[in-house]
Amino acid sequence: MNPYWSKRLQHIVPYVPGEQPKDGAYIKLNTNENPYPPSPAVLAAITAAAGTQLRLYPEPECDALRGAIAEYYGLAPQQIFVGNGSDEVLAMAFLAFFSPEDRIAFPAISYSFYPVYADLFAIPYDAVPLREDYTLNVHAFDGAYKGIIFANPNAPTGMALPLVQVESLVAEHPEKLVIVDEAYVDFGAESAAGLVARYPNLLVVQTFSKSRSLAGLRIGFALGQASLIQALDAVKNSFNSYTVDRLAQAGAIAAIKDCTYFEQTRNRIMETRERTADGLKALGFTVLPSKANFVFASHPQRSAAALFTALRQRKILVRYFDKPGIDQFLRITIGTDDEMEALLGALQEILQN
Amino acid sequence: MNPYWSKRLQHIVPYVPGEQPKDGAYIKLNTNENPYPPSPAVLAAITAAAGTQLRLYPEPECDALRGAIAEYYGLAPQQIFVGNGSDEVLAMAFLAFFSPEDRIAFPAISYSFYPVYADLFAIPYDAVPLREDYTLNVHAFDGAYKGIIFANPNAPTGMALPLVQVESLVAEHPEKLVIVDEAYVDFGAESAAGLVARYPNLLVVQTFSKSRSLAGLRIGFALGQASLIQALDAVKNSFNSYTVDRLAQAGAIAAIKDCTYFEQTRNRIMETRERTADGLKALGFTVLPSKANFVFASHPQRSAAALFTALRQRKILVRYFDKPGIDQFLRITIGTDDEMEALLGALQEILQN
Repeated sequence: MNPYWSKRLQHIVPYVPGEQPKDGAYIKLNTNENPYPPSPAVLAAITAAAGTQLRLYPEPECDALRGAIAEYYGLAPQQIFVGNGSDEVLAMAFLAFFSPEDRIAFPAISYSFYPVYADLFAIPYDAVPLREDYTLNVHAFDGAYKGIIFANPNAPTGMALPLVQVESLVAEHPEKLVIVDEAYVDFGAESAAGLVARYPNLLVVQTFSKSRSLAGLRIGFALGQASLIQALDAVKNSFNSYTVDRLAQAGAIAAIKDCTYFEQTRNRIMETRERTADGLKALGFTVLPSKANFVFASHPQRSAAALFTALRQRKILVRYFDKPGIDQFLRITIGTDDEMEALLGALQEILQN
Repeated sequence: MNPYWSKRLQHIVPYVPGEQPKDGAYIKLNTNENPYPPSPAVLAAITAAAGTQLRLYPEPECDALRGAIAEYYGLAPQQIFVGNGSDEVLAMAFLAFFSPEDRIAFPAISYSFYPVYADLFAIPYDAVPLREDYTLNVHAFDGAYKGIIFANPNAPTGMALPLVQVESLVAEHPEKLVIVDEAYVDFGAESAAGLVARYPNLLVVQTFSKSRSLAGLRIGFALGQASLIQALDAVKNSFNSYTVDRLAQAGAIAAIKDCTYFEQTRNRIMETRERTADGLKALGFTVLPSKANFVFASHPQRSAAALFTALRQRKILVRYFDKPGIDQFLRITIGTDDEMEALLGALQEILQN
């Protein structure tokens, strides 16, 4: 190792984001982006903000954006934290709530960034197994943990935990901080946002990257009681006071206010998801029940790695994780109807060979 | 303290950014923003990028932007790291290069974010004193430090360290990583960028916020040999893989390519700075020799805190730090000629009372 590197880098295996091909020739179903563009109101707001005022720092506290999010969820602005994508919000939450003296837990099959954050900040953790059917057993979190984090719907399975189970977990463990990562919740799962007012140990994290078509703009947020938000603010102001730029704040405000567009596009994606799942099943795939903008599918006779490669050769990108327990699955983002028909056609062709 | 907060928050006093008033009635000389708007080419590039592609993640490695910065400085893209403002670049550098087992040093009077980063990541540090004339004695860094960080020009003094002294520091301490924070270097100081190819222990950090009028867009960068950049990449991909959004990347590329606009505006600011310094001296102020887009000024007969308040009452915002050694100074950002005339007029009026 380079002598100038920090010792903490010895123990880190960084997260590997999905491939972002530079040529536009691919049907891109690999990073759970939204196939529909952002609301026209978002583009108008950004264009309006792209003026001389860019010479000035953004609002450090994102007051207007926090107000808009608070209004949408029926919460107070003091219960909202905004960051540069939900990955940043999660990273700051690990710093704000967990330290090397603590132990935390998350599912062994889940968003693969969680163990990376924990390693970076030297936070001990247990990766608890899912059940054989890939459902989450909330009693796996019964141990002496300072914190629990899980994605709902889970990634990469797409499977959602019913809200009643989320609430029982939060209610039964008042000594634990529970972080529910709801990056995909808008595609049919039940959000825990409505529980925030009642539970001081609940933090809900969401993003504008998926259901609001703004992966390119980088906005994530957390909902929690004011004392939790204060901890996130303290971390932010010890790391980077101005994380969300002027254009992102302006665009995000427009996005959360355009409810009609949001409902239309997410409904369309959910409909396409159900049709895609049916099509995959007709081709012999096992498809986990998804409440996300992707499906997780496995074919009993074909290696997922081989299918991934064959699709890639046909210029269709999906995501394959070479990890125990999920290495026979493909994670397939829901695109437009045309894109999903192209995927199903390509798979049919590959399976016939 | 809230029971859910991490223990590390017990020891943190977050950075306090300069006031960002929401009403536009102030002459704003308090956060070292550029008085001139960004280049028209920047606004055009942002408008062009504010389209349907915002649904897609940005280039995680910022390849095109790194290429443009590399070309500007005569370096290779592998020697460039880009982040969400230079504050984020600095925070990631603290994580990448220093750990709780190390000890680092920085000047006691300098950018007040350095001790905050160190506290957040539990990195022991010494804050070494400046000389009585506010110059930096590089031999103050002779101790057994793993890392050294200083701003050049220094903040809030504005005073620059000659490049020959920066080089001797880097050359004489090959065992130490030296971070030179050049946020203000474009306003007349000598950059260490040209030393990067020769010294594996040098990291130069710069920003688009000041000399390129883009505080509102959040882009900072680091220049260093590839092995240092790899460490920053490892941290970034363990914290937030997509820190710089699509619009920021597009705007920054246009900014660094518009050399003519950059030269015009920075030269104008340097000329205004010299006139402002002369005007302040004529009013009896002591003005430290500045190579930044601000001056640091003290009046022998008046309390700086009182001057700050009197200016604020006249709707002119400057920065006052209630800290030992500098609590008799005002830090005054260089605005337009008209703004600086208004400042000098207001000070003359205040001093006559």
